[in-house]
Amino acid sequence: MMSETNVQLVDWQVLKRFSQAVFEKLGVPQEDAELTADTLVMANLRGVDSHGVIRLKVYSQRIKGGGVSITAPIDIVQETPASALMDGGARLGQVVAVKAIELAMAKAKEVGAGVVAVRNGSHLGACAYFPMLALEEDMVGVTLSNSLATMVAWGGLERVLGNNPFAVAIPAGEERPIVLDMACGTVAWGKVFVAAQKGESIPGDWVLDKEGDPTTDPQRAWEGGFMLPFGQHKGYGISLVVNILTGLLSGGSVSTEIVDMYSDLARPQDVCYLMGALDIARFVPLEQFKSRMDELIRTMRGSKKREGVERIYVPGEKEFLEEEKRRKEGIPLPVAQIAEFKKMAQELDLEAPF
Amino acid sequence: MMSETNVQLVDWQVLKRFSQAVFEKLGVPQEDAELTADTLVMANLRGVDSHGVIRLKVYSQRIKGGGVSITAPIDIVQETPASALMDGGARLGQVVAVKAIELAMAKAKEVGAGVVAVRNGSHLGACAYFPMLALEEDMVGVTLSNSLATMVAWGGLERVLGNNPFAVAIPAGEERPIVLDMACGTVAWGKVFVAAQKGESIPGDWVLDKEGDPTTDPQRAWEGGFMLPFGQHKGYGISLVVNILTGLLSGGSVSTEIVDMYSDLARPQDVCYLMGALDIARFVPLEQFKSRMDELIRTMRGSKKREGVERIYVPGEKEFLEEEKRRKEGIPLPVAQIAEFKKMAQELDLEAPF
Repeated sequence: MMSETNVQLVDWQVLKRFSQAVFEKLGVPQEDAELTADTLVMANLRGVDSHGVIRLKVYSQRIKGGGVSITAPIDIVQETPASALMDGGARLGQVVAVKAIELAMAKAKEVGAGVVAVRNGSHLGACAYFPMLALEEDMVGVTLSNSLATMVAWGGLERVLGNNPFAVAIPAGEERPIVLDMACGTVAWGKVFVAAQKGESIPGDWVLDKEGDPTTDPQRAWEGGFMLPFGQHKGYGISLVVNILTGLLSGGSVSTEIVDMYSDLARPQDVCYLMGALDIARFVPLEQFKSRMDELIRTMRGSKKREGVERIYVPGEKEFLEEEKRRKEGIPLPVAQIAEFKKMAQELDLEAPF
Repeated sequence: MMSETNVQLVDWQVLKRFSQAVFEKLGVPQEDAELTADTLVMANLRGVDSHGVIRLKVYSQRIKGGGVSITAPIDIVQETPASALMDGGARLGQVVAVKAIELAMAKAKEVGAGVVAVRNGSHLGACAYFPMLALEEDMVGVTLSNSLATMVAWGGLERVLGNNPFAVAIPAGEERPIVLDMACGTVAWGKVFVAAQKGESIPGDWVLDKEGDPTTDPQRAWEGGFMLPFGQHKGYGISLVVNILTGLLSGGSVSTEIVDMYSDLARPQDVCYLMGALDIARFVPLEQFKSRMDELIRTMRGSKKREGVERIYVPGEKEFLEEEKRRKEGIPLPVAQIAEFKKMAQELDLEAPF
């Protein structure tokens, strides 16, 4: 998607230090700045550029605008041995999300399973980061988040649901973990945007134009069109359930109430999450589970392929491979992105390490 | 799908009593017989005929064949305050599944959340029945089940995954609950079969023929073809995760190991489940949750519709409407089905109430 002339490879550590320095300059406590920088750069490393350092600018703007707080307390409103309700204090979404999954993990460590509902969070970036923290404790991690309404109900022509993301991370033995991370739309809007820029057509089941007709013209989709849920009514149902288990179970906002990250910098977004953790060893012996995971992954990968298919992947595998590559070779950043960072650095009186 | 001449309307209570009597004649304890009969007839009432009394015959054959036990203990292998591992003793799937969701609910009542992994279960019919039991306790109920491998990995051409079902039930206030119940394939094989019988074509993204080519000919699909996951790689990922959280977390079988219900009547299937329950009041005040559920449901239903769409439904709504209708008017059964029941009645020395 990017020609070699308009991208530049940047070392992930350079990018992480810069991102962290930006947050620290804006008053974010060092630990939170480092964590948030890490989540953004991890998204880039894993090839999920739409949720990587590209967000640094809007996060900065929201901190300056007041929509994101850097010091408000993150409260546990109520809790039981296996559950909790957390108020994220409109802090950076990544900071809130890590606290929440860690609380779910602590509960799972004590009583086998933990579930934490979170309200008053902000955009949390790529979902996979949070359940992947559970892998280190040999747990299954689960993260659901709601998001701004950009999608229709099945049969509808009005934005009433978010392209809500969810992720599940499950440890394996010799194989890499399985990390499922997806959203409820047929595709990311970013793909429609890229096709429009390149003048290419898109498959007819991705989006509706503003009149409600399916369209293969990304430009028509972009101008007031609607994202369709993946798997038709099935993705609609899943998106609605995610919206409920996040926004309603936490007493926070649902998709139609969430504040747009870009257009209103002063008001907290009230994005809501649900975090879950299961301690595998409380169910079955850990080594048995892990070796059977390896076996199952190999069954998928080794199964007969369709003609023209080079390799069968399990969820998260492509991202692990991309991460290995990018850790070595660097993260490809558009030169326009680097120019933006240089400008940000100047404004914040920071050294731009590019 | 059925002409009026080859169906007969049967009162649900008549059908339930007959189903229960069949199970009791086969030695199933009265309570279990009644419960299993109830789950089958509920599926018919809700319009899910593929998982209703049509299964009475094969369940009976499996009890007679030894693949389903009527007396083996259902054991809690290990448990913590929020989690448990259960061995279903190869009993009727519905009996095992109810015990498991009830255990998850009891744990949620105590500590906010409960998760129960189950191995050595049997086919459990329509998934929705079990999480819907949580509605009575104002809880969110979740049920996942794995199933016999009939589906490909994404890019694959070999049956390595089940059309694994999962269901979530969430209570509302004045509105009916939301009950999401789906499986991971694009459609049920039954729909392909019906199209083949009627000589109709099917959409090109449902199935592959045995060579791995997409086909609109249901007959080609039926002859050694493969079900595709819903939402392409997304449904593949979800099916794989369901397979892990059921078969591996319980230490039971994964899809490729599960015994075919129809072809091997003597061997336990080892279908595995995961049951979850969340006690809503431990997160937010119950009345607030319920009134916001009503509001959200009305937002979906009241949102602008695409041309030609008469009504927007929320998950489970169509089934509630069908249930109301069928409770009054009766359950439409094919006459061939009724003939089969009469034959079963004769063999078991039961009175056929049709």
